[in-house]
Amino acid sequence: MANESRKVTFSVDRDSNFSEWYNTIIRQAELIDDRFNIKGMVVYRPLAMKLTKAIYGLLEERLETSGHQPVLFPVLIPEENLSKEAEHIKGFKPETYWVTMGGGETLTSRYALRPTSETAFYFMYSQWLRSPSDLPLKLYQSVAVYRHETKATKPLLRGREFLWIEAHDVFATAEEAIEQVREDERMTREVIEGELSVPILFLLKPQWDKFAGAVNTYAAEAVMPDGMVLQVATTHYLGKNFSEAFDLGYYDAEGKKRRVEQTCFGPGVSRILAAIISVHGDNLGLVMPFKVAPVQAVIVPIPGPGVEELARAIASRLRDKGIRVELDESEETPGAKFYKWEFRGVPLRIEVGEREVSSSRVTVFDRVARERNSVSLSELDGFLEEFPEAQHRALRDRAEGMFQRLMGEADSLQKARELTSSGKRVLKAYLCSLDLDGEGCAERIEKELGLSVRGELLNAEKPRDKKCIACGREARHEVFLAEAY
Amino acid sequence: MANESRKVTFSVDRDSNFSEWYNTIIRQAELIDDRFNIKGMVVYRPLAMKLTKAIYGLLEERLETSGHQPVLFPVLIPEENLSKEAEHIKGFKPETYWVTMGGGETLTSRYALRPTSETAFYFMYSQWLRSPSDLPLKLYQSVAVYRHETKATKPLLRGREFLWIEAHDVFATAEEAIEQVREDERMTREVIEGELSVPILFLLKPQWDKFAGAVNTYAAEAVMPDGMVLQVATTHYLGKNFSEAFDLGYYDAEGKKRRVEQTCFGPGVSRILAAIISVHGDNLGLVMPFKVAPVQAVIVPIPGPGVEELARAIASRLRDKGIRVELDESEETPGAKFYKWEFRGVPLRIEVGEREVSSSRVTVFDRVARERNSVSLSELDGFLEEFPEAQHRALRDRAEGMFQRLMGEADSLQKARELTSSGKRVLKAYLCSLDLDGEGCAERIEKELGLSVRGELLNAEKPRDKKCIACGREARHEVFLAEAY
Repeated sequence: MANESRKVTFSVDRDSNFSEWYNTIIRQAELIDDRFNIKGMVVYRPLAMKLTKAIYGLLEERLETSGHQPVLFPVLIPEENLSKEAEHIKGFKPETYWVTMGGGETLTSRYALRPTSETAFYFMYSQWLRSPSDLPLKLYQSVAVYRHETKATKPLLRGREFLWIEAHDVFATAEEAIEQVREDERMTREVIEGELSVPILFLLKPQWDKFAGAVNTYAAEAVMPDGMVLQVATTHYLGKNFSEAFDLGYYDAEGKKRRVEQTCFGPGVSRILAAIISVHGDNLGLVMPFKVAPVQAVIVPIPGPGVEELARAIASRLRDKGIRVELDESEETPGAKFYKWEFRGVPLRIEVGEREVSSSRVTVFDRVARERNSVSLSELDGFLEEFPEAQHRALRDRAEGMFQRLMGEADSLQKARELTSSGKRVLKAYLCSLDLDGEGCAERIEKELGLSVRGELLNAEKPRDKKCIACGREARHEVFLAEAY
Repeated sequence: MANESRKVTFSVDRDSNFSEWYNTIIRQAELIDDRFNIKGMVVYRPLAMKLTKAIYGLLEERLETSGHQPVLFPVLIPEENLSKEAEHIKGFKPETYWVTMGGGETLTSRYALRPTSETAFYFMYSQWLRSPSDLPLKLYQSVAVYRHETKATKPLLRGREFLWIEAHDVFATAEEAIEQVREDERMTREVIEGELSVPILFLLKPQWDKFAGAVNTYAAEAVMPDGMVLQVATTHYLGKNFSEAFDLGYYDAEGKKRRVEQTCFGPGVSRILAAIISVHGDNLGLVMPFKVAPVQAVIVPIPGPGVEELARAIASRLRDKGIRVELDESEETPGAKFYKWEFRGVPLRIEVGEREVSSSRVTVFDRVARERNSVSLSELDGFLEEFPEAQHRALRDRAEGMFQRLMGEADSLQKARELTSSGKRVLKAYLCSLDLDGEGCAERIEKELGLSVRGELLNAEKPRDKKCIACGREARHEVFLAEAY
């Protein structure tokens, strides 16, 4: 980047002032520019776009391994499609952008700027599905979606344009659809926890908080440094709701039309990026997971005899190993370079100076542990093989530690109040019902604590001898309470 | 795909009935579905989407190697941005889609659905550019763009939504900008001719046919089997037109603001895909360039003792070499499999039967040459190493042959008429001027021949002793005439 050499200043504490820390880092690390002249729509600068492409790559690889294939549907959806499923249009109409004009003319019917694409996919599925051999049908697209948010927007966290993947799956039976929800959880965990080191909760949402048109909604939520949760992926079990509305089915052996079962899965790429920035970043800047870092290792030469040759030899040795490496031979001082690359979150720094040349060693610096170590050139290959996994574990432990510090368990409103005033922001608690008859209790909890009922873990056991913290009746669910972005 | 096993029927001659051939193949090979209920906006099915991703990959790799970095700008552009450069808004207004409503409300100002993104990029560039060290600035995005076409649409060839890359480059001097145009030509040729085997003309466009807001426009045009040309990429030298309109510049050593020079480059990914389908396909179906084929080799076992083991061993041998291979162990007959994979354009088929097992050989079938050969297992590695390049050359020769068959040279209107009636559709001819004073001659040519003036080759020498075929004055340009999609 042309701007890399500008001096960065950064002095905001992430944990005590997260919002300002976040706004500062996305601007100063040149990730996102929110000065584009449409509120809530931002520009992804090269560093953010490279991370975005890497996150897409990890998710797409998983989806394809689990039998999905890529497609692309138009960005515009006719209003008649969007209106076919009654709950769906009711949920999305208040936040849909509409294209009403083409050139100088008013269009005869208006088109939605895709807020989500169920009603585009299923319009075509009704033409593609004919026989049982067409099932399962598992397609995904990697696109931006558009919502005319009325809440305050914040770059990557809540935007009017955001990036995601949407996978739309069709099955012959409910069992297969439910199995897909579990598969979606597995993929989500493998990528977000396994590759990006961000711990998540994967929750069945309350009925009052499900996707418009779904039977059940499941959500993956990351915990941000301020203790608010960020929904980074959702999976919806749609049952036959849309297959009724779109007349989706296949003809069985007797020539009878059978309705199909559906799921859809939406990992939010913008929000996963926000979670990486927020959960891993620290008061010295970004910290990028090795797997997706656009620069995985930077080599900083400290001028002296033989340094240039050794630095270049090491750079090419790393490149040969498939490591994305930057050899910083710019005019700046070594100290300025250390600061810059640390701020930009490069996982590994290798320093090469006169001392290193004479001792046939290099100095390595781990961005997560912030430790300097000396490694002999003969041991460098072994070190490089172990480094990514070791750093991943350290990053995961650090993130897990933050997660645990923000978490508490409350079996009464009184206890919950104590925990929130001592800084706990994600509470495990007990609720009478996640069906619509529990909504009153959830409202009471929200009013008392400022935390909403996020849902319960999949396959959670029914709590024993616990009371709903709001109404005191028998608790049927162990739930998580938190404030959400 | 669930639908693969459906019987395909295909009996349209590509060269005598291109339009029907094209419509048939994109539907039957399950590339594109044009039944989505917005005219001119189509659905990319998995085979098309995989090819699309591969084409994007080749172009992005080239762009990054030549110093470009990826970004992403919003899909919506405020009308005030679009209106800043007078020629630009005049050119694009008639075909721009407008978002006028968000939720139930009419927006206070309307937003364009990006028809192209100069006015989004340059709005931000005016905030990013400060000093000479910010230059050159070379950014690109891979996105869809939207044009409310009034002409008849045709899938991938002319759509109201199409996929492209747009690179927006800024330089301190005109020389560097002109050098970028040459670099754009190099990248275009390396990918489209070099990797995808599609011959192109790279032409400087006449002044009356340039991009709205450009000083000069250059276009890469492929020749389709019906002799019509398809513009697959454009490069615009913008000079200072937009930098004046957007107040783009940097401060020099004396603190004086200097206007910058700009170029933009737009390879059309949808159209490159259309060119691959059309130029390489034949009466037996698709033919995919090895480099981008989602399946590069298919292995068809012909049941017999030892066949399954050998087929699987060969499949894993190919996979180890990084070849995208499909082992077709489905229930269909070998003949049906041959037909299916040929239709889908898989470059290489390997047949394994009892005879192959007993002789330690395999039978290979080349989709381009349509030749079967026997290769011993010991020679298979060598064969696989040479095959992609050999097939690329054959494909390129075949495409070049078609290109030449459709091309003629005319030094008079009379000669041009004779050539067009004998089936020549792309004519090299002579014109007095490519400036606005030549437009009358171009109109006359178009009226007489139905062919438009496409432009002249870069660095073309001025023709000697030639007359303009329209007005008879001295010809200053050797131009190409063709009908364009």
